[in-house]
Amino acid sequence: MAQIEIGKKILSTNDQVALQVREVLDQQGLFGLNLMGSPGAGKTSVILATVAALDGALKTAVIEGDIASRVDADKVAAAGVPVYQINTGGMCHLDAPMIQKALAHLDTSEADLLIIENVGNLVCPNAFLLGAHCRVLVASVPEGDDKPYKYPAMFQDTNAVVLNKIDLLPYIDFDLDAYRRLVLSLNPDAALFPVSCKTGEGIQEWADWLLETKAHE
Amino acid sequence: MAQIEIGKKILSTNDQVALQVREVLDQQGLFGLNLMGSPGAGKTSVILATVAALDGALKTAVIEGDIASRVDADKVAAAGVPVYQINTGGMCHLDAPMIQKALAHLDTSEADLLIIENVGNLVCPNAFLLGAHCRVLVASVPEGDDKPYKYPAMFQDTNAVVLNKIDLLPYIDFDLDAYRRLVLSLNPDAALFPVSCKTGEGIQEWADWLLETKAHE
Repeated sequence: MAQIEIGKKILSTNDQVALQVREVLDQQGLFGLNLMGSPGAGKTSVILATVAALDGALKTAVIEGDIASRVDADKVAAAGVPVYQINTGGMCHLDAPMIQKALAHLDTSEADLLIIENVGNLVCPNAFLLGAHCRVLVASVPEGDDKPYKYPAMFQDTNAVVLNKIDLLPYIDFDLDAYRRLVLSLNPDAALFPVSCKTGEGIQEWADWLLETKAHE
Repeated sequence: MAQIEIGKKILSTNDQVALQVREVLDQQGLFGLNLMGSPGAGKTSVILATVAALDGALKTAVIEGDIASRVDADKVAAAGVPVYQINTGGMCHLDAPMIQKALAHLDTSEADLLIIENVGNLVCPNAFLLGAHCRVLVASVPEGDDKPYKYPAMFQDTNAVVLNKIDLLPYIDFDLDAYRRLVLSLNPDAALFPVSCKTGEGIQEWADWLLETKAHE
């Protein structure tokens, strides 16, 4: 029982910091997006495609979360986007104190949109509020159309699912209609965007949704 | 500091149970394999292809670990393999007590090989011993060739990497030579098996390695 109470305390400290982060974002007019998904779903590619599709309609800053390396931050920086890399050193998710610290180092003075790329993981990141306004799950066709059955919480708690790598649909058994039904049965309010960062298909629809969602915040 | 000590205690209880599990496996002449990997890497497909390639040379029993659903267990049972499904109910990894409990319910009387499919996750499962004799990481081409940079512990601690979905290599930017160098730089002792569960390519080599590794245990 002691364990459970300690767990509760940690979560509630995180949530308190998440509220502080949200306050900072709101003061700066920054719309925060917590981008989650499996390793290799294409979260960084979605970020780069989104920045290109927004075409300056929203100015973006990025926080990259990884266990190790700055591979992703280098890609984002090469696109001219302000970026701060968090290395969790083994931790399987970002938490609100990490975001608070990152914000102190990241130049967001020109930005309207803060995209936080979480650690690649379909389980743990979902349990930690970061103070963002919106949660988006990047899934991908090669992961298979049964993932919502196996990782339901991640699909239930998200505002949108960006289903990446639809260019691979001809080569993989993936039933897009069944997937859509399954996602909506778990989360009737979720927006679903089938996209390909390789061909650009669907990216504009997703970017338009993001613009509209920010406008209604 | 209190947190860290509590973490230590939990890990050490797990490790104690892992030793008990290992003892049970050894008493039954069962070779235990802890199969880890990202969601959608194809762990269940690798299990089914391995059973087929072993062609009775090893008789297999399977423990399936998932957050929710029994999709995977149903697939394995349909192949005539004894299987027990663990639903972790939100927990991001299997632990040794779950395996101990599963073994009490699973008929392993005919089996030489116990494959434990862990929860799809490239981070957390690596930190929990299950009592298995061997760790194998199922990776896949669509996840990208940079994963060892980002999730180094999983690659460092494994005995073998089964790189699945090589049938998709023509459609994806993936440098197999660079990937091999990267894996070996992190883990010079790792065996790497590029395979396709769809075409069967590479499966026999992997199954032969498994037979040989069991023979030397």
